[in-house]
Amino acid sequence: MLILGVDPGLTRCGVGVIEAGASRRLSFVHVDVIRSSPDTPQDLRLLKIYNGLVEKIERFVPDVVSIERVFAQENRSTVLGTAQVAGLAMLAAAQRGIPTALHTPSEVKLAITGSGTAPKKQVEYMVMRILNLNEPPKPADAADALGQAICHALRPAGAIQGGEREEHLTPAQRQWAQAVQASKHGRGPQKRDM
Amino acid sequence: MLILGVDPGLTRCGVGVIEAGASRRLSFVHVDVIRSSPDTPQDLRLLKIYNGLVEKIERFVPDVVSIERVFAQENRSTVLGTAQVAGLAMLAAAQRGIPTALHTPSEVKLAITGSGTAPKKQVEYMVMRILNLNEPPKPADAADALGQAICHALRPAGAIQGGEREEHLTPAQRQWAQAVQASKHGRGPQKRDM
Repeated sequence: MLILGVDPGLTRCGVGVIEAGASRRLSFVHVDVIRSSPDTPQDLRLLKIYNGLVEKIERFVPDVVSIERVFAQENRSTVLGTAQVAGLAMLAAAQRGIPTALHTPSEVKLAITGSGTAPKKQVEYMVMRILNLNEPPKPADAADALGQAICHALRPAGAIQGGEREEHLTPAQRQWAQAVQASKHGRGPQKRDM
Repeated sequence: MLILGVDPGLTRCGVGVIEAGASRRLSFVHVDVIRSSPDTPQDLRLLKIYNGLVEKIERFVPDVVSIERVFAQENRSTVLGTAQVAGLAMLAAAQRGIPTALHTPSEVKLAITGSGTAPKKQVEYMVMRILNLNEPPKPADAADALGQAICHALRPAGAIQGGEREEHLTPAQRQWAQAVQASKHGRGPQKRDM
């Protein structure tokens, strides 16, 4: 299964592609950052990022596009642009009949390091380890996009999204659900914004 | 000049088209609301709204697409979806080489009623009057989309966006700039989010 991860951003939008084989063996396929200049009008920035995402999706034809879930209270000066780019990634996938998934940063950290609150360096190190890279992917947006793809591959079977019941979960599923809940409570009731 | 106004929203996205002739004579051309169901996955909702916007833009081929400017602190439960739809409208226009404009609700009220804080009913009444309609356009999203288009047509020549200097402005331009500033200060430093 080919997974294309997106770390949405208007200035830098990370894209990472991995192959998830048998026994959850993951291999690195591609990583890149699509950029747009803050000096460019907003509509042309969105067009540039969208065209870059379409180019990646059409080149790799992923089975799923996994995108970082954006919260309304995050880093306010850029959150709307980030949400718009996440929307463009969903659009570009939906136009091609490719399913999309959304994972929070906490879910990504948990899936990759075993802790939903792991520091960034630890996540980068584990991304490098999991994908057998010689060094951590740069810039950070590239690592986050690969992390998003890895998270989608490693999420526990039947992983639930926020709001569903935790009855009869395996320990891994319960830990996952708790990470989802924690990110909800830490950020107020914005979970279902997008 | 044909102006297509957009009141962005994920559940209801208003679209209003007006013709701005000589001496700022405005005439009604079209109004509609593009809808998507909250029960549908987010990616398919965005696709449906985007396809609806593209259909309108390709049918009317406007000279400009004017879109309500979204603020990060507005109505938090829906603001990210609203921002995403505004982004789709900018994308759909930019893909066709059509320029876009963003006007805040305060700018719309000021342009239409002479007051940046006019109540909704007054705005609806003036939209009806300005466009010689027999009744106010319904639902509210439709009136807001027409208001957005009217605002773009009636904005003072050389109207400035927030952050620019107010020196040497005409009284109309200064009033406009003050409405822009008021909406900035009322909502914190989110002005430049998109």
